Amino acid sequence: MNNPLIPRVVIIGPGLIGGSLGMALRARRLAGHVIGVGHRHESLDRAIALGAIDEGALDPQAAVRDADLVLLAAGCGLIPLHANAVIPCMKPGAILTDVGSVKGAICQAVHQVLAGHPGCGVRFVGGHPLAGSEQRGIAAARADLFTGALCILTPTLQTDPDNTAGPAVRALWESVGCRVREMPPHRHDELLAQSSHLPHVAAACLVNALHDDALEITARGFLDITRIASGDPGLWVDICLNNREPLLAALDALGDELRDVADALDAGDADSLRRILQRAKQRRDSREGETRTGAPRSS
Amino acid sequence: MNNPLIPRVVIIGPGLIGGSLGMALRARRLAGHVIGVGHRHESLDRAIALGAIDEGALDPQAAVRDADLVLLAAGCGLIPLHANAVIPCMKPGAILTDVGSVKGAICQAVHQVLAGHPGCGVRFVGGHPLAGSEQRGIAAARADLFTGALCILTPTLQTDPDNTAGPAVRALWESVGCRVREMPPHRHDELLAQSSHLPHVAAACLVNALHDDALEITARGFLDITRIASGDPGLWVDICLNNREPLLAALDALGDELRDVADALDAGDADSLRRILQRAKQRRDSREGETRTGAPRSS
Repeated sequence: MNNPLIPRVVIIGPGLIGGSLGMALRARRLAGHVIGVGHRHESLDRAIALGAIDEGALDPQAAVRDADLVLLAAGCGLIPLHANAVIPCMKPGAILTDVGSVKGAICQAVHQVLAGHPGCGVRFVGGHPLAGSEQRGIAAARADLFTGALCILTPTLQTDPDNTAGPAVRALWESVGCRVREMPPHRHDELLAQSSHLPHVAAACLVNALHDDALEITARGFLDITRIASGDPGLWVDICLNNREPLLAALDALGDELRDVADALDAGDADSLRRILQRAKQRRDSREGETRTGAPRSS
Repeated sequence: MNNPLIPRVVIIGPGLIGGSLGMALRARRLAGHVIGVGHRHESLDRAIALGAIDEGALDPQAAVRDADLVLLAAGCGLIPLHANAVIPCMKPGAILTDVGSVKGAICQAVHQVLAGHPGCGVRFVGGHPLAGSEQRGIAAARADLFTGALCILTPTLQTDPDNTAGPAVRALWESVGCRVREMPPHRHDELLAQSSHLPHVAAACLVNALHDDALEITARGFLDITRIASGDPGLWVDICLNNREPLLAALDALGDELRDVADALDAGDADSLRRILQRAKQRRDSREGETRTGAPRSS
């Protein structure tokens, strides 16, 4: 294994996303050595057996000491805590990144940790690969999870002042098959509130809005469209609370759309109703062409 | 072909649902002769080639003359018109049924047509097989579409006073693999407003609530959950307008659920948010176990 992209990678939380990245890096021989940090020996052994990591570790502070790149891959509520724990232990020049589903709160928190350790030489870029599903855990991980998926990076001058971490993390995700886009953290959060967090919350509300006897006659179609409502509630509470304002704005927008339908129905206005449904069909169908069927699901 | 269940069946509108029923009846030799009535020779020839019907016809009034059972399988807005056209031409004792997605308006309309032809001897039972997808047309039809699907029948004393049509139509759908449940038309409409019409409208609103740049980053997951928003707008305008009150009530219920989420978010109330998401997950997962993956999608 000559000249791997990154000699030593530490993945904190090798679950669906972290484990899949480990698998992809190892399968392509892009990392010299991959260490997974978790809570339990059993899950780390499983990650080793599945080819996601070379070595397991329970202590993140010891594990990151010689790392060239540390990936924070736990739920987004834990990422600031992990950053706070590992940054003082990382070597100068090392790169820190994450896969959290919100970026504003995380980038801000990491910035504050970095500001508390001036001269530590660690550079951070926030990341979010839009891959995964309602499943969680290493059991669902796979080496091709990122093939064709979009990964959003949110570099800021505060966490990567000389812009050296950005290109390295971009190369990391591109090397495992991602298309990479960069944008400011708050912009990521606005877009994801609409494209991911709102659909999740709406699916849950749709399930809860049904009376029991209506739920009883639902079939595959209903389950398909509410699939994301089976996601882990704890994970999603974190995401929602870490992205409150953009999600509230998106909920408002959905409420407006639903009210337009109710008004048209109330008035028996077939033309307005047709315009609404036609617009939705055209917009959705326009994406269908650009998203191949086998592509990973966005999380 | 000895003793078919029904000697002569006429399907008015042999598309996805009507065509699939024709295929299922013919494949199982349950019908002596299946006539499809459509607007164009080409589509009728296609239905014959696909094995959905034995014979095509352009004139519904001539086609139904010797029919033992007539199935109205066009969009629900057309069903009353077709009933009005064919009832005077059907033979006494013949059975009329339909597959419309709303039942109250249709059963009421057919009742009025029957009341205008006292002594015609035609008996009607409304039906709705919960099968199909966002696709339409004979090209999507298949003989096993109804295997394991629920079919709701809505017999009323007004349209089937001696309860002879009900058992015959139940036997028809059971013979092609459906589970059959009976309920009053308004009850069907309440349940379907929640389990089918609301999800459809909500998916469309979800698509329309996204700004263009948020739509642009959606991936497979978003397309999966908004799949039904690609349904035919004209068809769905008919369904919505024919089921206004129950759908308005369901939209209200969804609005309440969304407001509860917004309130919890606004208050930073993690416990309430967790309860909401947990309830949705439990309710949805409870259906997952009862609905096998290969089952047809509800329409």
